[in-house]
Amino acid sequence: MRPYIIINAAMSADGKLSTRERRQVRISGADDFSRVDQMRAACDAILVGIGTVLSDDPSLTVKSPFLREERKMRRADENPVRIVLDSDAKTPLTADILRKGEGKRIIAVSEKADPRRVMALQEYAEVIICGEDSVNIHSFVQELQKKGIATLMIEGGGTVIWSFVSQGLFDELNIYIGSMIIGGKTAPTLADGKGFIDESLFPGLTLDHVGQMDDGVLIRWKRRE
Amino acid sequence: MRPYIIINAAMSADGKLSTRERRQVRISGADDFSRVDQMRAACDAILVGIGTVLSDDPSLTVKSPFLREERKMRRADENPVRIVLDSDAKTPLTADILRKGEGKRIIAVSEKADPRRVMALQEYAEVIICGEDSVNIHSFVQELQKKGIATLMIEGGGTVIWSFVSQGLFDELNIYIGSMIIGGKTAPTLADGKGFIDESLFPGLTLDHVGQMDDGVLIRWKRRE
Repeated sequence: MRPYIIINAAMSADGKLSTRERRQVRISGADDFSRVDQMRAACDAILVGIGTVLSDDPSLTVKSPFLREERKMRRADENPVRIVLDSDAKTPLTADILRKGEGKRIIAVSEKADPRRVMALQEYAEVIICGEDSVNIHSFVQELQKKGIATLMIEGGGTVIWSFVSQGLFDELNIYIGSMIIGGKTAPTLADGKGFIDESLFPGLTLDHVGQMDDGVLIRWKRRE
Repeated sequence: MRPYIIINAAMSADGKLSTRERRQVRISGADDFSRVDQMRAACDAILVGIGTVLSDDPSLTVKSPFLREERKMRRADENPVRIVLDSDAKTPLTADILRKGEGKRIIAVSEKADPRRVMALQEYAEVIICGEDSVNIHSFVQELQKKGIATLMIEGGGTVIWSFVSQGLFDELNIYIGSMIIGGKTAPTLADGKGFIDESLFPGLTLDHVGQMDDGVLIRWKRRE
Protein backbone atom coordinates (compact mmCIF):
# COMPACT_ATOMS: atom_id res chain seq x y z
CA MET A 1 0.00 0.00 0.00
CA ARG A 2 1.10 3.50 -0.77
CA PRO A 3 -0.75 6.84 -0.92
CA TYR A 4 -3.00 7.63 -3.90
CA ILE A 5 -0.79 9.92 -5.99
CA ILE A 6 -2.15 12.70 -8.20
CA ILE A 7 0.17 14.58 -10.54
CA ASN A 8 -1.11 18.04 -11.41
CA ALA A 9 0.53 20.57 -13.70
CA ALA A 10 -0.15 23.34 -16.17
CA MET A 11 1.79 23.48 -19.42
CA SER A 12 1.78 25.39 -22.70
CA ALA A 13 0.47 23.84 -25.92
CA ASP A 14 4.05 22.67 -26.57
CA GLY A 15 4.49 21.00 -23.18
CA LYS A 16 6.53 23.66 -21.36
CA LEU A 17 6.11 24.53 -17.68
CA SER A 18 7.91 27.88 -17.99
CA THR A 19 10.35 29.79 -20.20
CA ARG A 20 13.92 28.59 -20.70
CA GLU A 21 14.92 31.06 -17.98
CA ARG A 22 12.50 29.19 -15.68
CA ARG A 23 10.44 32.30 -15.31
CA GLN A 24 6.90 31.40 -14.34
CA VAL A 25 4.22 32.22 -16.89
CA ARG A 26 0.52 32.47 -16.16
CA ILE A 27 -0.71 29.44 -18.06
CA SER A 28 -4.22 28.84 -16.70
CA GLY A 29 -7.07 31.06 -15.52
CA ALA A 30 -9.48 31.57 -12.63
CA ASP A 31 -11.44 28.33 -13.05
CA ASP A 32 -8.33 26.20 -13.11
CA PHE A 33 -6.90 28.11 -10.16
CA SER A 34 -9.99 27.23 -8.19
CA ARG A 35 -9.92 23.59 -9.36
CA VAL A 36 -6.29 23.27 -8.16
CA ASP A 37 -7.18 24.93 -4.84
CA GLN A 38 -9.98 22.38 -4.32
CA MET A 39 -7.65 19.54 -5.18
CA ARG A 40 -5.05 20.83 -2.70
CA ALA A 41 -7.67 21.15 0.02
CA ALA A 42 -8.81 17.57 -0.60
CA CYS A 43 -5.33 16.05 -0.32
CA ASP A 44 -3.36 15.09 2.77
CA ALA A 45 -0.07 16.34 1.35
CA ILE A 46 1.37 18.35 -1.56
CA LEU A 47 4.86 17.79 -2.91
CA VAL A 48 7.18 19.88 -5.10
CA GLY A 49 10.84 19.66 -6.02
CA ILE A 50 13.57 22.03 -4.89
CA GLY A 51 13.77 23.46 -8.44
CA THR A 52 10.21 24.72 -8.14
CA VAL A 53 10.89 26.19 -4.68
CA LEU A 54 13.96 28.04 -5.98
CA SER A 55 12.36 29.37 -9.17
CA ASP A 56 8.75 30.04 -8.12
CA ASP A 57 8.84 30.17 -4.29
CA PRO A 58 5.26 28.85 -3.97
CA SER A 59 3.54 28.76 -0.57
CA LEU A 60 1.25 25.88 -1.66
CA THR A 61 -1.35 27.01 0.85
CA VAL A 62 -5.07 26.52 0.28
CA LYS A 63 -6.25 29.91 -0.95
CA SER A 64 -10.00 29.74 -0.37
CA PRO A 65 -10.99 30.68 3.23
CA PHE A 66 -14.04 28.47 2.80
CA LEU A 67 -11.93 25.42 1.90
CA ARG A 68 -9.56 26.12 4.80
CA GLU A 69 -12.54 26.30 7.15
CA GLU A 70 -13.87 23.06 5.74
CA ARG A 71 -10.54 21.36 6.49
CA LYS A 72 -10.63 22.64 10.08
CA MET A 73 -14.18 21.33 10.48
CA ARG A 74 -12.86 17.86 9.78
CA ARG A 75 -10.02 18.43 12.27
CA ALA A 76 -7.32 18.69 9.65
CA ASP A 77 -4.78 21.51 9.54
CA GLU A 78 -5.79 24.49 7.37
CA ASN A 79 -3.24 23.38 4.80
CA PRO A 80 -2.16 19.91 3.70
CA VAL A 81 1.33 18.78 4.71
CA ARG A 82 3.69 20.62 2.37
CA ILE A 83 6.67 18.61 1.17
CA VAL A 84 9.87 19.52 -0.67
CA LEU A 85 12.02 16.88 -2.38
CA ASP A 86 15.39 18.38 -1.70
CA SER A 87 18.29 15.89 -1.80
CA ASP A 88 20.90 18.54 -0.90
CA ALA A 89 18.84 20.45 1.68
CA LYS A 90 18.94 23.64 -0.34
CA THR A 91 15.51 24.98 0.60
CA PRO A 92 16.06 28.63 1.64
CA LEU A 93 15.03 29.33 5.23
CA THR A 94 13.08 32.29 3.87
CA ALA A 95 11.04 30.17 1.41
CA ASP A 96 7.30 30.90 1.46
CA ILE A 97 6.59 27.19 1.83
CA LEU A 98 8.30 27.33 5.27
CA ARG A 99 6.96 30.70 6.33
CA LYS A 100 3.43 31.12 5.01
CA GLY A 101 0.29 29.50 6.35
CA GLU A 102 -0.39 26.98 9.11
CA GLY A 103 0.34 23.30 8.93
CA LYS A 104 3.17 20.80 8.77
CA ARG A 105 6.14 20.82 6.42
CA ILE A 106 8.41 17.95 5.48
CA ILE A 107 11.75 18.30 3.71
CA ALA A 108 13.04 15.06 2.19
CA VAL A 109 16.84 15.06 1.94
CA SER A 110 19.53 12.49 1.17
CA GLU A 111 22.39 11.33 3.38
CA LYS A 112 24.79 13.63 1.57
CA ALA A 113 22.93 16.78 2.68
CA ASP A 114 24.99 19.13 4.86
CA PRO A 115 24.04 18.40 8.52
CA ARG A 116 24.17 22.10 9.36
CA ARG A 117 21.59 22.83 6.63
CA VAL A 118 19.48 19.98 7.95
CA MET A 119 19.61 21.38 11.48
CA ALA A 120 18.67 24.84 10.28
CA LEU A 121 15.70 23.47 8.30
CA GLN A 122 14.53 21.50 11.32
CA GLU A 123 13.46 24.79 12.90
CA TYR A 124 10.72 25.01 10.28
CA ALA A 125 10.04 21.51 9.07
CA GLU A 126 10.39 17.86 9.80
CA VAL A 127 13.43 16.65 7.87
CA ILE A 128 13.39 13.07 6.63
CA ILE A 129 16.71 11.61 5.52
CA CYS A 130 16.05 8.96 2.94
CA GLY A 131 18.45 7.70 0.26
CA GLU A 132 22.21 8.00 -0.24
CA ASP A 133 22.92 10.60 -2.92
CA SER A 134 19.38 11.52 -3.76
CA VAL A 135 16.03 10.95 -2.11
CA ASN A 136 14.77 7.39 -2.55
CA ILE A 137 11.24 8.12 -3.61
CA HIS A 138 9.89 4.62 -3.05
CA SER A 139 11.00 4.56 0.60
CA PHE A 140 9.98 8.16 1.11
CA VAL A 141 6.47 7.46 -0.12
CA GLN A 142 6.31 4.53 2.31
CA GLU A 143 7.32 6.90 5.11
CA LEU A 144 4.47 9.20 4.16
CA GLN A 145 2.04 6.29 4.24
CA LYS A 146 3.18 5.48 7.80
CA LYS A 147 2.45 9.08 8.77
CA GLY A 148 -1.16 8.62 7.67
CA ILE A 149 -0.86 10.40 4.33
CA ALA A 150 -3.34 8.64 2.06
CA THR A 151 -3.52 11.16 -0.79
CA LEU A 152 -0.50 12.94 -2.20
CA MET A 153 -0.54 15.66 -4.84
CA ILE A 154 2.58 16.28 -6.94
CA GLU A 155 2.76 19.83 -8.26
CA GLY A 156 6.04 19.65 -10.17
CA GLY A 157 8.39 20.55 -11.63
CA GLY A 158 9.37 18.37 -14.54
CA THR A 159 12.22 16.56 -12.80
CA VAL A 160 10.07 15.51 -9.86
CA ILE A 161 7.18 14.51 -12.14
CA TRP A 162 9.60 12.40 -14.17
CA SER A 163 10.88 10.69 -10.99
CA PHE A 164 7.38 9.63 -10.01
CA VAL A 165 6.27 8.73 -13.55
CA SER A 166 9.38 6.70 -14.35
CA GLN A 167 8.86 4.61 -11.22
CA GLY A 168 5.16 4.10 -11.83
CA LEU A 169 4.40 6.04 -8.65
CA PHE A 170 1.21 7.81 -9.67
CA ASP A 171 -2.48 7.10 -10.15
CA GLU A 172 -3.80 10.22 -11.85
CA LEU A 173 -2.34 12.81 -14.19
CA ASN A 174 -4.13 16.15 -14.51
CA ILE A 175 -2.77 18.48 -17.15
CA TYR A 176 -4.05 21.94 -17.89
CA ILE A 177 -2.97 23.02 -21.37
CA GLY A 178 -2.82 26.77 -21.87
CA SER A 179 -3.52 28.46 -25.20
CA MET A 180 0.06 29.58 -25.74
CA ILE A 181 3.35 28.40 -27.15
CA ILE A 182 6.47 28.98 -25.06
CA GLY A 183 9.00 27.07 -27.14
CA GLY A 184 12.64 26.36 -26.37
CA LYS A 185 14.82 23.28 -26.57
CA THR A 186 15.96 23.83 -22.97
CA ALA A 187 12.72 25.12 -21.42
CA PRO A 188 11.42 22.86 -18.60
CA THR A 189 8.82 20.37 -19.77
CA LEU A 190 6.16 18.42 -17.91
CA ALA A 191 8.42 15.37 -17.68
CA ASP A 192 12.17 16.00 -17.89
CA GLY A 193 14.84 13.69 -16.45
CA LYS A 194 16.25 10.96 -18.66
CA GLY A 195 13.07 9.99 -20.43
CA PHE A 196 12.02 6.58 -21.67
CA ILE A 197 13.78 5.11 -24.66
CA ASP A 198 11.72 1.95 -24.84
CA GLU A 199 8.00 2.18 -25.61
CA SER A 200 7.31 -1.00 -23.68
CA LEU A 201 8.23 0.85 -20.48
CA PHE A 202 5.75 3.69 -20.97
CA PRO A 203 3.23 3.68 -18.12
CA GLY A 204 -0.24 2.83 -19.45
CA LEU A 205 -2.61 5.79 -19.39
CA THR A 206 -6.35 5.84 -19.90
CA LEU A 207 -8.03 9.07 -20.89
CA ASP A 208 -10.54 9.90 -18.16
CA HIS A 209 -11.66 13.43 -18.94
CA VAL A 210 -11.14 16.09 -21.57
CA GLY A 211 -12.79 19.46 -21.83
CA GLN A 212 -12.35 23.19 -22.19
CA MET A 213 -11.52 25.15 -19.03
CA ASP A 214 -10.88 28.89 -18.98
CA ASP A 215 -9.43 29.52 -22.45
CA GLY A 216 -7.46 26.27 -22.45
CA VAL A 217 -8.00 22.55 -22.01
CA LEU A 218 -8.06 20.25 -18.99
CA ILE A 219 -7.14 16.59 -19.53
CA ARG A 220 -7.15 13.86 -16.92
CA TRP A 221 -5.60 10.45 -17.37
CA LYS A 222 -5.64 7.51 -14.98
CA ARG A 223 -2.82 5.02 -14.83
CA ARG A 224 -3.66 1.53 -15.97
CA GLU A 225 -2.29 -1.26 -13.78
CA MET B 1 -0.33 37.82 -48.87
CA ARG B 2 1.18 34.49 -47.96
CA PRO B 3 -0.16 30.91 -47.97
CA TYR B 4 -2.54 29.78 -45.21
CA ILE B 5 -0.25 27.82 -42.90
CA ILE B 6 -1.41 24.85 -40.82
CA ILE B 7 0.92 23.31 -38.24
CA ASN B 8 0.09 19.69 -37.49
CA ALA B 9 1.85 17.42 -35.02
CA ALA B 10 1.34 14.56 -32.61
CA MET B 11 2.94 14.68 -29.17
CA SER B 12 2.89 12.76 -25.91
CA ALA B 13 1.05 14.08 -22.84
CA ASP B 14 4.32 15.76 -21.85
CA GLY B 15 4.85 17.52 -25.19
CA LYS B 16 7.43 15.19 -26.77
CA LEU B 17 7.53 14.30 -30.48
CA SER B 18 9.77 11.26 -29.96
CA THR B 19 12.22 9.72 -27.49
CA ARG B 20 15.49 11.44 -26.64
CA GLU B 21 17.12 9.17 -29.23
CA ARG B 22 14.71 10.68 -31.78
CA ARG B 23 13.17 7.31 -32.33
CA GLN B 24 9.65 7.66 -33.68
CA VAL B 25 6.88 6.42 -31.40
CA ARG B 26 3.35 5.63 -32.50
CA ILE B 27 1.50 8.43 -30.74
CA SER B 28 -1.89 8.52 -32.45
CA GLY B 29 -4.26 5.91 -33.90
CA ALA B 30 -6.28 5.07 -37.03
CA ASP B 31 -8.72 7.98 -36.82
CA ASP B 32 -5.98 10.54 -36.45
CA PHE B 33 -3.99 8.89 -39.24
CA SER B 34 -6.96 9.32 -41.53
CA ARG B 35 -7.54 12.92 -40.36
CA VAL B 36 -3.92 13.78 -41.20
CA ASP B 37 -4.21 12.04 -44.57
CA GLN B 38 -7.28 14.15 -45.40
CA MET B 39 -5.49 17.30 -44.32
CA ARG B 40 -2.51 16.42 -46.52
CA ALA B 41 -4.76 15.75 -49.49
CA ALA B 42 -6.47 19.10 -49.01
CA CYS B 43 -3.24 21.14 -48.95
CA ASP B 44 -1.14 22.42 -51.84
CA ALA B 45 2.13 21.64 -50.09
CA ILE B 46 3.55 19.84 -47.04
CA LEU B 47 6.76 20.91 -45.35
CA VAL B 48 9.13 19.16 -42.91
CA GLY B 49 12.62 19.91 -41.63
CA ILE B 50 15.77 17.99 -42.48
CA GLY B 51 15.82 16.58 -38.92
CA THR B 52 12.52 14.80 -39.56
CA VAL B 53 13.77 13.47 -42.92
CA LEU B 54 16.93 12.09 -41.31
CA SER B 55 15.24 10.51 -38.29
CA ASP B 56 11.88 9.32 -39.69
CA ASP B 57 12.38 9.23 -43.49
CA PRO B 58 8.71 10.01 -44.18
CA SER B 59 7.33 9.87 -47.74
CA LEU B 60 4.54 12.37 -46.88
CA THR B 61 2.40 10.89 -49.65
CA VAL B 62 -1.39 10.82 -49.47
CA LYS B 63 -2.17 7.28 -48.34
CA SER B 64 -5.84 6.90 -49.30
CA PRO B 65 -6.32 5.87 -52.97
CA PHE B 66 -9.69 7.60 -52.86
CA LEU B 67 -8.15 10.92 -51.78
CA ARG B 68 -5.42 10.61 -54.42
CA GLU B 69 -8.09 10.01 -57.05
CA GLU B 70 -10.03 13.02 -55.80
CA ARG B 71 -6.92 15.18 -56.22
CA LYS B 72 -6.46 13.95 -59.78
CA MET B 73 -10.11 14.73 -60.56
CA ARG B 74 -9.39 18.36 -59.74
CA ARG B 75 -6.27 18.22 -61.93
CA ALA B 76 -3.82 18.33 -59.05
CA ASP B 77 -0.91 15.90 -58.67
CA GLU B 78 -1.67 12.80 -56.62
CA ASN B 79 0.42 14.24 -53.80
CA PRO B 80 0.84 17.82 -52.62
CA VAL B 81 4.21 19.46 -53.29
CA ARG B 82 6.58 17.98 -50.69
CA ILE B 83 9.08 20.41 -49.23
CA VAL B 84 12.19 19.95 -47.08
CA LEU B 85 13.73 22.88 -45.16
CA ASP B 86 17.35 21.89 -45.50
CA SER B 87 19.82 24.79 -45.13
CA ASP B 88 22.87 22.56 -45.72
CA ALA B 89 21.38 20.39 -48.50
CA LYS B 90 21.75 17.23 -46.45
CA THR B 91 18.67 15.41 -47.72
CA PRO B 92 19.86 11.89 -48.68
CA LEU B 93 19.30 11.07 -52.34
CA THR B 94 17.69 7.85 -51.16
CA ALA B 95 15.11 9.62 -48.94
CA ASP B 96 11.56 8.36 -49.37
CA ILE B 97 10.34 11.91 -49.82
CA LEU B 98 12.39 12.06 -53.07
CA ARG B 99 11.68 8.54 -54.24
CA LYS B 100 8.15 7.58 -53.28
CA GLY B 101 4.94 8.73 -54.95
CA GLU B 102 4.18 11.13 -57.78
CA GLY B 103 4.33 14.89 -57.56
CA LYS B 104 6.74 17.79 -57.14
CA ARG B 105 9.42 18.18 -54.50
CA ILE B 106 11.13 21.37 -53.35
CA ILE B 107 14.28 21.48 -51.24
CA ALA B 108 14.92 24.86 -49.62
CA VAL B 109 18.64 25.42 -48.99
CA SER B 110 20.82 28.35 -47.96
CA GLU B 111 23.69 29.96 -49.88
CA LYS B 112 26.21 28.03 -47.82
CA ALA B 113 24.95 24.64 -49.09
CA ASP B 114 27.57 22.64 -51.02
CA PRO B 115 26.88 23.28 -54.78
CA ARG B 116 27.66 19.62 -55.57
CA ARG B 117 24.96 18.49 -53.13
CA VAL B 118 22.58 21.02 -54.65
CA MET B 119 23.28 19.68 -58.14
CA ALA B 120 22.74 16.12 -57.02
CA LEU B 121 19.42 17.01 -55.38
CA GLN B 122 18.27 18.81 -58.52
CA GLU B 123 17.87 15.40 -60.16
CA TYR B 124 14.94 14.75 -57.83
CA ALA B 125 13.62 18.10 -56.72
CA GLU B 126 13.50 21.79 -57.44
CA VAL B 127 16.13 23.41 -55.22
CA ILE B 128 15.42 26.93 -54.01
CA ILE B 129 18.38 28.85 -52.58
CA CYS B 130 17.05 31.35 -50.09
CA GLY B 131 18.97 32.93 -47.20
CA GLU B 132 22.66 33.20 -46.32
CA ASP B 133 23.48 30.71 -43.55
CA SER B 134 20.04 29.25 -43.08
CA VAL B 135 16.83 29.33 -45.06
CA ASN B 136 15.03 32.66 -44.77
CA ILE B 137 11.54 31.40 -44.07
CA HIS B 138 9.75 34.67 -44.79
CA SER B 139 11.22 34.93 -48.30
CA PHE B 140 10.79 31.24 -48.90
CA VAL B 141 7.10 31.38 -48.03
CA GLN B 142 6.76 34.28 -50.48
CA GLU B 143 8.39 32.11 -53.16
CA LEU B 144 5.83 29.40 -52.47
CA GLN B 145 3.02 31.91 -52.81
CA LYS B 146 4.38 32.93 -56.24
CA LYS B 147 4.27 29.28 -57.27
CA GLY B 148 0.56 29.18 -56.53
CA ILE B 149 0.77 27.44 -53.17
CA ALA B 150 -2.15 28.79 -51.18
CA THR B 151 -2.23 26.24 -48.34
CA LEU B 152 0.86 24.91 -46.61
CA MET B 153 0.94 22.18 -43.97
CA ILE B 154 3.90 22.02 -41.57
CA GLU B 155 4.47 18.53 -40.22
CA GLY B 156 7.48 19.18 -37.97
CA GLY B 157 9.78 18.63 -36.30
CA GLY B 158 10.14 20.91 -33.31
CA THR B 159 12.85 23.13 -34.78
CA VAL B 160 10.86 23.86 -37.93
CA ILE B 161 7.65 24.40 -35.96
CA TRP B 162 9.51 26.84 -33.69
CA SER B 163 10.83 28.75 -36.75
CA PHE B 164 7.33 29.28 -38.08
CA VAL B 165 5.75 29.98 -34.69
CA SER B 166 8.42 32.45 -33.59
CA GLN B 167 7.93 34.46 -36.76
CA GLY B 168 4.15 34.41 -36.52
CA LEU B 169 4.00 32.42 -39.75
CA PHE B 170 1.03 30.18 -39.05
CA ASP B 171 -2.75 30.33 -38.95
CA GLU B 172 -3.75 27.02 -37.37
CA LEU B 173 -2.17 24.67 -34.88
CA ASN B 174 -3.47 21.10 -34.70
CA ILE B 175 -2.05 18.96 -31.93
CA TYR B 176 -2.87 15.34 -31.30
CA ILE B 177 -2.00 14.41 -27.71
CA GLY B 178 -1.36 10.73 -27.18
CA SER B 179 -2.12 8.92 -23.92
CA MET B 180 1.51 8.34 -23.02
CA ILE B 181 4.43 9.99 -21.29
CA ILE B 182 7.79 9.89 -23.06
CA GLY B 183 9.79 12.16 -20.74
CA GLY B 184 13.34 13.41 -21.15
CA LYS B 185 15.02 16.77 -20.76
CA THR B 186 16.56 16.43 -24.22
CA ALA B 187 13.74 14.68 -26.08
CA PRO B 188 12.41 16.73 -29.04
CA THR B 189 9.35 18.80 -28.15
CA LEU B 190 6.64 20.34 -30.28
CA ALA B 191 8.44 23.70 -30.31
CA ASP B 192 12.20 23.64 -29.72
CA GLY B 193 14.64 26.32 -30.89
CA LYS B 194 15.40 29.24 -28.58
CA GLY B 195 11.94 29.69 -27.15
CA PHE B 196 10.27 32.91 -26.04
CA ILE B 197 11.47 34.60 -22.89
CA ASP B 198 8.96 37.43 -22.95
CA GLU B 199 5.26 36.64 -22.57
CA SER B 200 4.31 39.71 -24.59
CA LEU B 201 5.82 38.02 -27.66
CA PHE B 202 3.75 34.83 -27.39
CA PRO B 203 1.55 34.49 -30.49
CA GLY B 204 -2.11 34.80 -29.50
CA LEU B 205 -4.01 31.53 -29.79
CA THR B 206 -7.73 30.92 -29.65
CA LEU B 207 -9.00 27.46 -28.81
CA ASP B 208 -11.06 26.30 -31.78
CA HIS B 209 -11.72 22.63 -31.09
CA VAL B 210 -11.08 20.06 -28.40
CA GLY B 211 -12.24 16.46 -28.29
CA GLN B 212 -11.28 12.84 -27.86
CA MET B 213 -9.85 11.06 -30.90
CA ASP B 214 -8.66 7.46 -30.86
CA ASP B 215 -7.51 7.02 -27.26
CA GLY B 216 -6.05 10.53 -27.09
CA VAL B 217 -7.09 14.14 -27.61
CA LEU B 218 -7.18 16.43 -30.63
CA ILE B 219 -6.87 20.17 -30.03
CA ARG B 220 -7.03 22.89 -32.65
CA TRP B 221 -6.05 26.49 -32.07
CA LYS B 222 -6.30 29.41 -34.47
CA ARG B 223 -3.87 32.29 -34.35
CA ARG B 224 -5.34 35.62 -33.33
CA GLU B 225 -4.19 38.58 -35.42
